[in-house]
Amino acid sequence: MSRFVDANLTLLADFYELTMANGYFHEGISDQVAYFDMFFRHVPEDGGFAIMAGLEQVIHYLSNLTFDQEDIDFLESKNIFDKGFLDSLLHFHFSCDVWAVPEGTPIFPGEPILTVRGPVAQAQFVETMILLLINHQSLIATKANRIVRAAEGRPVMEFGSRRAQGGDAAIYGARAAVIGGCVGTACTIADKQFGIPAMGTMAHSWVQMFDSELDAFRAYARLYPQNCVLLIDTYNVLKSGVPNAIRVFQEEVIPRGFRPGGVRIDSGDITYLSKQTREMLNKVGLTDCSIVASNSLDEVIIRDILAQGAQVDSFGVGERLITSKSEPVFGGVYKLVAVENGEKIVPKIKISENVEKITTPGFKQVWRLYERENGKAIADLVALAEEKIDSAKAYELFDPEFTWKRKIIHDYTIKPLLKPIFYQGKCVYKSPSVKKIAAFCKEQIATMWSEVLRFENPHRYYVDLSQSLWKLKHQMLEKLSTPN
Amino acid sequence: MSRFVDANLTLLADFYELTMANGYFHEGISDQVAYFDMFFRHVPEDGGFAIMAGLEQVIHYLSNLTFDQEDIDFLESKNIFDKGFLDSLLHFHFSCDVWAVPEGTPIFPGEPILTVRGPVAQAQFVETMILLLINHQSLIATKANRIVRAAEGRPVMEFGSRRAQGGDAAIYGARAAVIGGCVGTACTIADKQFGIPAMGTMAHSWVQMFDSELDAFRAYARLYPQNCVLLIDTYNVLKSGVPNAIRVFQEEVIPRGFRPGGVRIDSGDITYLSKQTREMLNKVGLTDCSIVASNSLDEVIIRDILAQGAQVDSFGVGERLITSKSEPVFGGVYKLVAVENGEKIVPKIKISENVEKITTPGFKQVWRLYERENGKAIADLVALAEEKIDSAKAYELFDPEFTWKRKIIHDYTIKPLLKPIFYQGKCVYKSPSVKKIAAFCKEQIATMWSEVLRFENPHRYYVDLSQSLWKLKHQMLEKLSTPN
Repeated sequence: MSRFVDANLTLLADFYELTMANGYFHEGISDQVAYFDMFFRHVPEDGGFAIMAGLEQVIHYLSNLTFDQEDIDFLESKNIFDKGFLDSLLHFHFSCDVWAVPEGTPIFPGEPILTVRGPVAQAQFVETMILLLINHQSLIATKANRIVRAAEGRPVMEFGSRRAQGGDAAIYGARAAVIGGCVGTACTIADKQFGIPAMGTMAHSWVQMFDSELDAFRAYARLYPQNCVLLIDTYNVLKSGVPNAIRVFQEEVIPRGFRPGGVRIDSGDITYLSKQTREMLNKVGLTDCSIVASNSLDEVIIRDILAQGAQVDSFGVGERLITSKSEPVFGGVYKLVAVENGEKIVPKIKISENVEKITTPGFKQVWRLYERENGKAIADLVALAEEKIDSAKAYELFDPEFTWKRKIIHDYTIKPLLKPIFYQGKCVYKSPSVKKIAAFCKEQIATMWSEVLRFENPHRYYVDLSQSLWKLKHQMLEKLSTPN
Repeated sequence: MSRFVDANLTLLADFYELTMANGYFHEGISDQVAYFDMFFRHVPEDGGFAIMAGLEQVIHYLSNLTFDQEDIDFLESKNIFDKGFLDSLLHFHFSCDVWAVPEGTPIFPGEPILTVRGPVAQAQFVETMILLLINHQSLIATKANRIVRAAEGRPVMEFGSRRAQGGDAAIYGARAAVIGGCVGTACTIADKQFGIPAMGTMAHSWVQMFDSELDAFRAYARLYPQNCVLLIDTYNVLKSGVPNAIRVFQEEVIPRGFRPGGVRIDSGDITYLSKQTREMLNKVGLTDCSIVASNSLDEVIIRDILAQGAQVDSFGVGERLITSKSEPVFGGVYKLVAVENGEKIVPKIKISENVEKITTPGFKQVWRLYERENGKAIADLVALAEEKIDSAKAYELFDPEFTWKRKIIHDYTIKPLLKPIFYQGKCVYKSPSVKKIAAFCKEQIATMWSEVLRFENPHRYYVDLSQSLWKLKHQMLEKLSTPN
């Protein structure tokens, strides 16, 4: 179903994944088991949370990962890869374990959202595509959710294909937008592929193709009397668009037994024009004719025009959603956190002068803690995978930076966020439909306190480390900061 | 060669292209010949010019455009399309003429960069993909060129795949980055597909996989002594990274008959660290060992650190290039500008309350005028396609907004920018290699005055209308602003 099945994207990988894999082969350590975490450091636009998305495409990618002869020939032409290494790629078979947070889950900086365990050469190689796919869709799902929340219950449609950064950005961007709460998309193929409703009526060119706006509206309404939405800003919204639309609704739509679908305004002062349009429609009894607004909208503009009393019933949002214009990068990273040495898991850390770039070592699980009484999320707890947390007992949370900030919680429930996705290279997880993911997302966001959801200065949701993990990390930091 | 050949992206189109096509079919006007122009209104980041890119992918798309039975079945399931219309799609055959500005050409707001002429249903349908492909690659080529110019001759590599907005964004983004002047990419598949050099050495995880940084460097240098670039910021750049790199260059690289390739710094204060690193390298005679910097760079940061004396020899640029972070949207639009009525071309215009959204009617050509003496570009002239411009005669240019601003030019040469790409659905243009496009781009930028090239407040390059075109536009505007 996914396009990644059709095309061979194996070499959509940073070149260094290959020079390193070749190096591991050369050193005889290709099969040493390593653990890599994907996590991110910062919520786009200083929001309170992000939304996980893109996992279904990661699964497709990993399930279909092979090197064909053309790939090998290409690599051979570079004259830097071992013959034995290239031969091994021909028999490449993904055999790692993967855990990940399900799509639609609110996620927070500093916690692993995906973990890969397996032979280092493989687990390293898949870095580029895992990051690319999850970074992209999490970015768009997060942005879409901001816009949807700003619209306060009014439907938001994704209209941005023409400004998307490539074909995948349009298709998977539409998918992510629906996960984030959009009700549909203009992107037809996204409907075909994911069953998310594609919508659209007419462009200005339709209106221009006829001798007059009235003729254009008439022709459209006769063909599509059901849910007929007319674009009213080709010439002049209030002088010609609205009067012509009213006439056509009255003469072509209502007599056929339908109600007017709506009018769309795509330029000019949306607040003013929508108010005037509403008044003109109401005056002739078309109170149920909805007004759709488009034209470079985002959550800031939507909140602003609604605060000014704009009479808009639904929104079409294009370029600012499909590129996440105000912050178009989701900075997920993929870092080595442990290796296996025989039976032992040896934690690894990366130091940095930028403190926020220091990694959290070890093989881990993330737990979300909820208040038992109202189901609201209290905090996420990152712990070593082997740790057990008994929610029947009180648990002491503490801030990993300001460790004197402590809080003992009593009546709570607990849920592991990282679910098994692959076991020894075999997929053990079934992706839900996009519709189900979107419903799950809505449900999960409802577990967040409104303080986390607000746009300006949201409350920083707690992502704490367990006592054991905190100790491990700080022991390693101290050891490494002693010059070797 | 292009992925668009592999995958059926026919339905990567806004849904309204299909409701309109069905409408034209229903009205019996599907085959009326229409003219659509693609143009843009604003250079990203208020730059002086943009760079055309993405045409090769448009050609692939148009050359392979067909509807398969699965597409038809999907559309049928929507229950709004005529049976006859759906049947016609099964025999769809692209038969339009297309003209476009070659890739690598500097382009300016308000001038057509691509024109489609043909049966309206077809010429309309291809809107979404034409915009998507050219908007995306022109955005990235333009951004890359800004970054490359800021680096003042130092090589710039594209490193952004993991933060690209989807797989296409990585692959075609790398292509566009090289058109804009990057010397290579980290994206391996872009090398395989377009022959642009893929580069890369090691990640922090390589260093972490070994018992010590020194062991990691040693292993790498033994395997890749030629052009050996070591990543020196996994633990501490100055205390361990540089000393270990020097030792390994001296013990493993130079004795094997090679010179040190370089060291890469990926975090911390690049200015300070690079100066210190340079000094330490020079002190032991490694004056030819280059310093590579990466970590969230763009043209602003590169200019800033160079102004502060950073000792960087080449740059790796990631997320801020591959997403054009500071302005991630290239706002190209596709508008109906004329229809044919028998032998006659009837111009069409779109009015708007936003003055810059008013279109320029008619079937047009764009001419670039150069000073004969020094080859510098004077202005672009948008004229009706039928107009002849005789460069042997003086020509009077005038500003289409401030028409009293006039200038008579004498010694000039002239070049049409829009080249034939398709004739009656058949491709009549051969795309040059990316390498050739990049060379052409460099050459074309050299024809621009430095006033147009500067970053802050660049001179607004003239895009003028011919006298006839100006008259046509203003007659139509006056007629339409009289209420009908």
